[in-house]
Amino acid sequence: MRTLITNIGELSTCTMQIDGGAGIIRDAAVLVEDERIAWVGAAADAPVADEIVDAAGRAMIPGFVDSHSHIVFGGDRAAEFEARMAGEKYAAGGIRSTVAATRVASDDELRARLRGFIAEMHAQGTTTVEIKSGYGLDVETEERLVRLAAEATDEVTFLGAHVVPAEYADDPDGYVDLVTGPMLDACAPHAKWIDVFCETGAFTVEQSRRVLEAGTAHGLAPRVHASQLGPGDGVRMAIELGAASVDHGTYLTDGDVAALAASDTVLTLLPGVEFSTRQPYPDARRLIDAGVTVALACDTNPGSSFTSSMPFCIAVAVRDMGMTPAEALWAATAGGAAALRRDDIGVIAPGARADLVLLDAPSHVHLSYRPGVPLVSTVWKDGVLVAGSAERGGAS
Amino acid sequence: MRTLITNIGELSTCTMQIDGGAGIIRDAAVLVEDERIAWVGAAADAPVADEIVDAAGRAMIPGFVDSHSHIVFGGDRAAEFEARMAGEKYAAGGIRSTVAATRVASDDELRARLRGFIAEMHAQGTTTVEIKSGYGLDVETEERLVRLAAEATDEVTFLGAHVVPAEYADDPDGYVDLVTGPMLDACAPHAKWIDVFCETGAFTVEQSRRVLEAGTAHGLAPRVHASQLGPGDGVRMAIELGAASVDHGTYLTDGDVAALAASDTVLTLLPGVEFSTRQPYPDARRLIDAGVTVALACDTNPGSSFTSSMPFCIAVAVRDMGMTPAEALWAATAGGAAALRRDDIGVIAPGARADLVLLDAPSHVHLSYRPGVPLVSTVWKDGVLVAGSAERGGAS
Ligand SMILES: [Zn+2]
Ligand SMILES: [Zn+2]
Repeated sequence: MRTLITNIGELSTCTMQIDGGAGIIRDAAVLVEDERIAWVGAAADAPVADEIVDAAGRAMIPGFVDSHSHIVFGGDRAAEFEARMAGEKYAAGGIRSTVAATRVASDDELRARLRGFIAEMHAQGTTTVEIKSGYGLDVETEERLVRLAAEATDEVTFLGAHVVPAEYADDPDGYVDLVTGPMLDACAPHAKWIDVFCETGAFTVEQSRRVLEAGTAHGLAPRVHASQLGPGDGVRMAIELGAASVDHGTYLTDGDVAALAASDTVLTLLPGVEFSTRQPYPDARRLIDAGVTVALACDTNPGSSFTSSMPFCIAVAVRDMGMTPAEALWAATAGGAAALRRDDIGVIAPGARADLVLLDAPSHVHLSYRPGVPLVSTVWKDGVLVAGSAERGGAS
Repeated sequence: MRTLITNIGELSTCTMQIDGGAGIIRDAAVLVEDERIAWVGAAADAPVADEIVDAAGRAMIPGFVDSHSHIVFGGDRAAEFEARMAGEKYAAGGIRSTVAATRVASDDELRARLRGFIAEMHAQGTTTVEIKSGYGLDVETEERLVRLAAEATDEVTFLGAHVVPAEYADDPDGYVDLVTGPMLDACAPHAKWIDVFCETGAFTVEQSRRVLEAGTAHGLAPRVHASQLGPGDGVRMAIELGAASVDHGTYLTDGDVAALAASDTVLTLLPGVEFSTRQPYPDARRLIDAGVTVALACDTNPGSSFTSSMPFCIAVAVRDMGMTPAEALWAATAGGAAALRRDDIGVIAPGARADLVLLDAPSHVHLSYRPGVPLVSTVWKDGVLVAGSAERGGAS
């Protein structure tokens, strides 16, 4: 089956780090053959197809690649959010309250919730999402979380080292023994990635290194949460261990920035976190100008960032992190793919997966020019419609 | 026809300036009879009805009242936005480029665009929108704009005094003569409100007063744009003339705040403007604590704020203006109604219009807790479904 999507007013291919228009084709068409993109070019030169979709002059972008999420959990923390916004201390348990709610939730409850988030993400243009465990913090629950995540994505991350659970408060190294021993044994078969929250109050650099090295020995590839709450050595350790991405990076030293720029490690910014916690925004401009590869992701989680909207993250990154609309789009598509070491997603190019988003707008710029407006009109994942509808014409 | 919407997990009635839960009913039901709300209370006490809608435990809020928009225009200014975000000067004409594009657009083109915005607003939960003219700036085009606006809303505002057009650059008082003379004569029959942009670079306080008094003499009620770019005397003048609302208020003196608090004039904050122009946010906390009635609106326009998302404005008001989620919800519903001097909208109470929004969320708090996520599920305006779908059960 060959489907031609034509009359695309502005096609953002994201095949280059687009700055000021590179990577954009006007009056374009895309040929989809089964789950892959078969051809990309000017509409006037389009090959024949079995069916035609008329984009009516609208803009098309690659499906978003959201490389950082925590969407298998129970409960929510709206009351904690409300208290934080009122400037009040909130006594109840923070992340530990989510752990408690997750442990008692059934597989079916967690699965239904997860499916809801996936549908919500599709409707907002996200076609690939990485999903982390980390709200179980015991062997049985962490194994459930990675197993459920694997039902929804190929990009599953084992994050047993999210925080030290209450029952190990006096013995954090004992918890690291658990994570790197029986918990890793149970979770590794379902996961692709190993992650750790390397931060004061979570895990030390030494503990983080143990976790990542154990994961690597089990065939998992490393990625790291670091420098969210203050500067630290987590970024350098991540680079040294060849992590695909360091995430957060709200507080980076000049040395961190230079080391990132000289590495293959992506720095993934999470604007939803700063938005929802009233933290200062990191300076994406500084990173990009230094040559760092930057990705954008939502970090969907019930505590620090409950958005699942990549368009929202793009708008905030442009307004508050100094990115141009084109840079933010790249970071949310090809940048996310780089953070997952993938080259078959995040771009509109022959051979790539047919993960495509049609916008109710003439340009990708509208994603930040029209913040909050649901502009995602039609979404294909692997060539299959997963949100919106396509007005189809006859065969060409 | 009596429709009972029941099993509402959290009903925000907005009948009081909700702070910390007042105005909220849990496990609630709402009875709609034709275009009005007939009854509100606990689901267990609900009266019989002809049909039942099951809210499945979700949250319901009043339809948003967006009391400030400019959505009859031609063209867009995405390139200007992009240049501004890159920190570049943008030579092309700003508002005057929109005036030029609007003047040459046909009624049908403007109407199609306007209908698109109305549909987009409905989908985001807005059930009442005020619409201003102001991109014509000549008698013929301003008359077209208010006439087209009146096809879409009862809340039409004549804003001939938006900016001095190029052809009157050397004779601004001559332009005020036109606005208060033939232009007002042509526009007043289609409008309810008279507005003026009282700001350095637009109209002086003296010119603004002339415009508002002329409008009042033609049966229009005053509202004012003031203190967007710096402090000025526009707020005091608006209060003195009994304006329903002063809008923007980014720069207010303590005297302005005290005068607002002692008046019947609403201060309408427009978070999309500060977001999209990188201006500092006004401090809503200061206003509310001083006793000022605050509304939130989108100011949808192609120059300074192209969002049409009331949920987005709520999220920004909570994050950056110091409002609580409940205050922001009130400001976006009952507050907007106050800014339009209406008591039949913006609340869920017997006798009010059946303008209702069901959220895909358990609480109104999620509007800021989940920024950017399209949580508006089902929208009724005057008892008629205008967005989403209602799962209906049988008669009770
Ligand atoms: Zn995270
Ligand atoms: Zn305005």
